[in-house]
Amino acid sequence: MTSELAPATTDTALVDLLGMVAYGELSAFERMAADARLAPDLRRRAALSEMAAVEIANYGRLATRLTELGADPEAAMTPYVGVLQAYHDSTEPKDWLEALTKAYVGDGVADDFFHEMAKLIDEPDRQLVLDVIHDKRYDEFAVTEIRAAIEADPKTRNRLSMWARRLVGEVLSQATRVAGQRAALTTLIVTSGGDQAAVQALFRRMTIAHSARMSALGLNN
Amino acid sequence: MTSELAPATTDTALVDLLGMVAYGELSAFERMAADARLAPDLRRRAALSEMAAVEIANYGRLATRLTELGADPEAAMTPYVGVLQAYHDSTEPKDWLEALTKAYVGDGVADDFFHEMAKLIDEPDRQLVLDVIHDKRYDEFAVTEIRAAIEADPKTRNRLSMWARRLVGEVLSQATRVAGQRAALTTLIVTSGGDQAAVQALFRRMTIAHSARMSALGLNN
Repeated sequence: MTSELAPATTDTALVDLLGMVAYGELSAFERMAADARLAPDLRRRAALSEMAAVEIANYGRLATRLTELGADPEAAMTPYVGVLQAYHDSTEPKDWLEALTKAYVGDGVADDFFHEMAKLIDEPDRQLVLDVIHDKRYDEFAVTEIRAAIEADPKTRNRLSMWARRLVGEVLSQATRVAGQRAALTTLIVTSGGDQAAVQALFRRMTIAHSARMSALGLNN
Repeated sequence: MTSELAPATTDTALVDLLGMVAYGELSAFERMAADARLAPDLRRRAALSEMAAVEIANYGRLATRLTELGADPEAAMTPYVGVLQAYHDSTEPKDWLEALTKAYVGDGVADDFFHEMAKLIDEPDRQLVLDVIHDKRYDEFAVTEIRAAIEADPKTRNRLSMWARRLVGEVLSQATRVAGQRAALTTLIVTSGGDQAAVQALFRRMTIAHSARMSALGLNN
């Protein structure tokens, strides 16, 4: 029965995708909670901690959905642990501004990717992925902080621009590793995306969105 | 007008108390989020992260209430930053079990104290304090983990018993520092509590509750 084959393939890709997003949320929680301790005052420390809590609530929704799909959330997330760890180990922020830039720029690229992937899956999972990546509160907070820091000390612009470029390089390097490991996910992009041109268009949209974020921060691309 | 004097005194003690509980919640969030990274697997890591998020939601309620009272949450919390930091610096957990024991035993003593203090203040603040200290989900989690660890390796009992005694010693030492610094709070305990006997009864109740927690964990007092 070929009709059973197609859904099975799709399910693997879906679990791969939700597992990736879920682990992204769990990691984002941990990183933001840790970064909060770099905050220069209690107000900012509490603000970032409260934003971190949003990520773990999102994680909970994804874990619940994975369980509904008959998948084990832990097993679905496991393939991404090493990659994320390698990314974080190679991009340890030295201070508050580097931490904010990392979350805004690095998570921005990841969110854009999840956004593109969401287009390739059915409801209700499409909306679930779109819901969990859409916390604009953090973006506004990061942009305000970083623009103010650059205004106070223009040298900050150059330092953070270099830092942001390094971050994107590391994100792409780890993304390539994931693509090599998760065949179902890669197949989903290539087949659902249509042809090579569609995949190129996806990367072009992500590049434009990244440039827009750099401009919003007042950083040089 | 003497009628204005009394509320002013009470308000100082109330803001002191809510500031202390608020900072306790913010710190508990940070510590649990950090401890989650010591977890032996993703399931436990996610579970502790989700419990940490409860603490930050509680923090939000306390900060909102402080603002309603005309107080600045940051200013209300500031007196407790040094004390809590000193406590955490002197009791850095080496592993997952020490982290769980610290949260259960150390926060247990703090919660008991907040519980006693809640009796001395009026509604709606009394209920607010009782609400935020009452997350029994963590307790069950910690007790299950620690009892299982002792069963798997009986030597764990001795190590964690000594660790728990050290924790309580540090809590009391820092509590004494706070009492010396926050006159309004100390006055609240002594005057609302009635006499010296009432204060002694408070400490006796706290000691009994601490012993019960040690027994629940299977640790020696």
